[in-house]
Amino acid sequence: MFLKNTWYVACKPADVETKPLGRKICNESMVFYKGEGGKVVALEDFCPHRGAPLSLGFVCEGKLVCGYHGLEMGCDGKTVAMPGQRVRGFPAIHAYPTVERYGFVWVWPGEADKADESLVPTFEFFDNPAWAYGGGLYHIHCDYRLMIDNLMDLTHETYVHASSIGQKEIDESPCVTKVDGDHVTTSRFMENISAPPFWQMALRGNNLADDVPVDRWQICHFTPPSHVMIEVGVAHAGKGGYHAPDDSKAYSVVVDFITPETDTSIWYFWGMARKFKPQDAALTQSIQEGQGKIFAEDLDMLELQQKNLLAHPTRELLKLNIDAGGVQSRRVIERLLAQEQGATHG
Amino acid sequence: MFLKNTWYVACKPADVETKPLGRKICNESMVFYKGEGGKVVALEDFCPHRGAPLSLGFVCEGKLVCGYHGLEMGCDGKTVAMPGQRVRGFPAIHAYPTVERYGFVWVWPGEADKADESLVPTFEFFDNPAWAYGGGLYHIHCDYRLMIDNLMDLTHETYVHASSIGQKEIDESPCVTKVDGDHVTTSRFMENISAPPFWQMALRGNNLADDVPVDRWQICHFTPPSHVMIEVGVAHAGKGGYHAPDDSKAYSVVVDFITPETDTSIWYFWGMARKFKPQDAALTQSIQEGQGKIFAEDLDMLELQQKNLLAHPTRELLKLNIDAGGVQSRRVIERLLAQEQGATHG
Amino acid sequence: MFLKNTWYVACKPADVETKPLGRKICNESMVFYKGEGGKVVALEDFCPHRGAPLSLGFVCEGKLVCGYHGLEMGCDGKTVAMPGQRVRGFPAIHAYPTVERYGFVWVWPGEADKADESLVPTFEFFDNPAWAYGGGLYHIHCDYRLMIDNLMDLTHETYVHASSIGQKEIDESPCVTKVDGDHVTTSRFMENISAPPFWQMALRGNNLADDVPVDRWQICHFTPPSHVMIEVGVAHAGKGGYHAPDDSKAYSVVVDFITPETDTSIWYFWGMARKFKPQDAALTQSIQEGQGKIFAEDLDMLELQQKNLLAHPTRELLKLNIDAGGVQSRRVIERLLAQEQGATHG
Repeated sequence: MFLKNTWYVACKPADVETKPLGRKICNESMVFYKGEGGKVVALEDFCPHRGAPLSLGFVCEGKLVCGYHGLEMGCDGKTVAMPGQRVRGFPAIHAYPTVERYGFVWVWPGEADKADESLVPTFEFFDNPAWAYGGGLYHIHCDYRLMIDNLMDLTHETYVHASSIGQKEIDESPCVTKVDGDHVTTSRFMENISAPPFWQMALRGNNLADDVPVDRWQICHFTPPSHVMIEVGVAHAGKGGYHAPDDSKAYSVVVDFITPETDTSIWYFWGMARKFKPQDAALTQSIQEGQGKIFAEDLDMLELQQKNLLAHPTRELLKLNIDAGGVQSRRVIERLLAQEQGATHG
Repeated sequence: MFLKNTWYVACKPADVETKPLGRKICNESMVFYKGEGGKVVALEDFCPHRGAPLSLGFVCEGKLVCGYHGLEMGCDGKTVAMPGQRVRGFPAIHAYPTVERYGFVWVWPGEADKADESLVPTFEFFDNPAWAYGGGLYHIHCDYRLMIDNLMDLTHETYVHASSIGQKEIDESPCVTKVDGDHVTTSRFMENISAPPFWQMALRGNNLADDVPVDRWQICHFTPPSHVMIEVGVAHAGKGGYHAPDDSKAYSVVVDFITPETDTSIWYFWGMARKFKPQDAALTQSIQEGQGKIFAEDLDMLELQQKNLLAHPTRELLKLNIDAGGVQSRRVIERLLAQEQGATHG
Repeated sequence: MFLKNTWYVACKPADVETKPLGRKICNESMVFYKGEGGKVVALEDFCPHRGAPLSLGFVCEGKLVCGYHGLEMGCDGKTVAMPGQRVRGFPAIHAYPTVERYGFVWVWPGEADKADESLVPTFEFFDNPAWAYGGGLYHIHCDYRLMIDNLMDLTHETYVHASSIGQKEIDESPCVTKVDGDHVTTSRFMENISAPPFWQMALRGNNLADDVPVDRWQICHFTPPSHVMIEVGVAHAGKGGYHAPDDSKAYSVVVDFITPETDTSIWYFWGMARKFKPQDAALTQSIQEGQGKIFAEDLDMLELQQKNLLAHPTRELLKLNIDAGGVQSRRVIERLLAQEQGATHG
């Protein structure tokens, strides 16, 4: 169960630069390609002629040409032409609204007439010279909500990511979860602690000493349908922590766009936006590689947790204080799902 | 759904030269081996003793010996002997009629008493010194009818095989489909065009200029259950086209025997019989390699088309003029299926 | 269908020496680890917090720590602690009784209060300086009863293991099957025959001539739930056969512990205990390697037999005299299964 009348990150423009991309999103097989004027188009990946996947075709002058018998598909899902055929009566295929924003292609899997570009969330760190961004994509076999749980409860860092960002003080510091409409926040502040290896690297990247006590923060923000932005960072202790001036801290936002593929698999777009040394491309790459390794440590856990839950579908799980972020995020999703389905079926 | 009271190509005699071959055909697990007198035998691949696959056994003096406990199976599906046992009361397993013809082993998956060797189709190009033959086998995960559609509509050559046999004139030339009893024919003739790379190679193979205008033809013949013979070739333009003398053209027949394995997989025996330079073994091999590469280009398309159709079982496909060959072939199959099932159940 | 109120071999202590082991037994996902005092513990592989597999965690001071959020699990399935949490109300997970015996960890998958260490069978050859033991583990996709059938009818050696332990005299010598309560025995004695290659090697290992006539015996013992011990050996002919003095024979016991993983897969612990040259470690290794190769020859047969039986669920198999060992063993299992289910549900 996932929201469909909403924007999901589908791919990056570079993924469709030279040829179409077939990708399933919210259980729908879609083809993405660069249509007329370079705008990325998303259609059902199903040729109305004989059911061939259009993603095996090619793009010619902004039209998607089926690689089987040459049907030319327009960006509205209506056939434009086919050699030797009158195509006016051909059935249309679904065209999914898309918008290119922040270096991603976003798609609206639900009712097209409800798509509204203004509903793409606003992020201050994209397209902003004060920030740098790097990230990647993992394909994971788990329900998208297990990933939300994961990101809204960072006590797992102590165990899953023990050698990079984990430290016992995360477990020892209580977190506070707040709900404001559809926005769920879980915050944790740690004072006068040692920086773990990843943050030592980040401090050095910002020309700061890495062997002095620091204040550390983690502020997880969930917004629907499945975006989790995590403000993270360390400041030299006593400089104001989260509010310390930029030259006393390393401040970043972990960016997580979780796009359901099926009920038990996701496209997980992860990344990090940082507000220090934004011009330092080598630092961007170094952080991207570090984060990629760290986030790969979650894959086995999530996939085997999913298998366990499928094998025990009726077993109740615990909802502890540390789980409040995930629990509240799921409540927001359930409320919106009920609204969406009521609006559709009511 | 496939016809069962009919002959299908099962394998080549060389496939059973040194040991039995297990192969599923029409949803039935069969074992093929060289029985008494060297005749290829087909039986259920199921030892009546404990259900072991007989194809893991070996052949001894024309009897198939189960590799588990040594049961000796006769070519009629009746147990001949077993160490220390009286076998008279052992249940028989099904023996499938076979016939060796044209370098293939043919099998009749249906009612054995209806098998008639005279129903194996006649082909002028096999066992004929005026012709040469080369071919191969692909295992493809698609309904056998998708492959019939593929072969009865060659407009796909322009897209799937663009670099070898495709050319825009195929799309531009109308085709004509005729039905004569169980025989469906789709023909296309193109005049005064350039020869595409594969046919340039063939022209050179027949000592003909490859850079002059040619007439090209494609005459697809479907006969039940799932044989598609395609007369193909090019002649130097103005020499009579399809009817040009042998020394002015390169004339071949694409040979397609499509044997269902399951409802969604096939054993696809492809090949080419050519009526020029039949003694030139190097040319035979060159054409076989070229055809093997070209026909491999269809595999992804067919398998992903099959996946799409399974995901959308109720969606209607288009039946255009170019699809008439496949559509008519399917009608022949449906009519014969109804007959077969009426005869069986009526 | 398998017995659950019984002991199965689960793993070896070395398998849990450095980290937990996740293994499914009798359709239950279990985690094995070294708990307090070094005793091997078996629990459900399901963290009561969020369903993570505990086998991805680690052991700290005898407690199993979940690798996701640090829940500390006790050996009784009750949570001991969790950072920042009161755990008293946490639901317990199932703790499976275990016992370490004969170099194996045994587990009782059924009702824990019925577990009784005295029910672990007694074997004279383990922990006995007059004997040496070597063995291994195979994971096989077949019903555990197919493996019992295999081991209780050694006529298959002639076919499956023709080059090592098979010989035609096995087929030619009748076997006798007896049932004594839950104990099924199938015996075969062969006199004045040649020793096959494996036994020639064993004779040489015991400093005995390998090129003289021998008497050979095979006495298969089934006991529930699925243990098959096979007394095997050869003696120089005329020295008393099975009863010959130790210095005239090579006498071993093939040890088979068959642990169901699912309805159609098993953990197969195979080995050989031998009563000659027990101190000769090189001989132990040589026999282990030889047996490992021989027993691997059964894998394809068992897995494809299983596939055949699944495809033909209603077909009756033969029950010949050679099958009596397996047939009687299955009857014992069925009787005990009915008892176990009556006791549970009655």
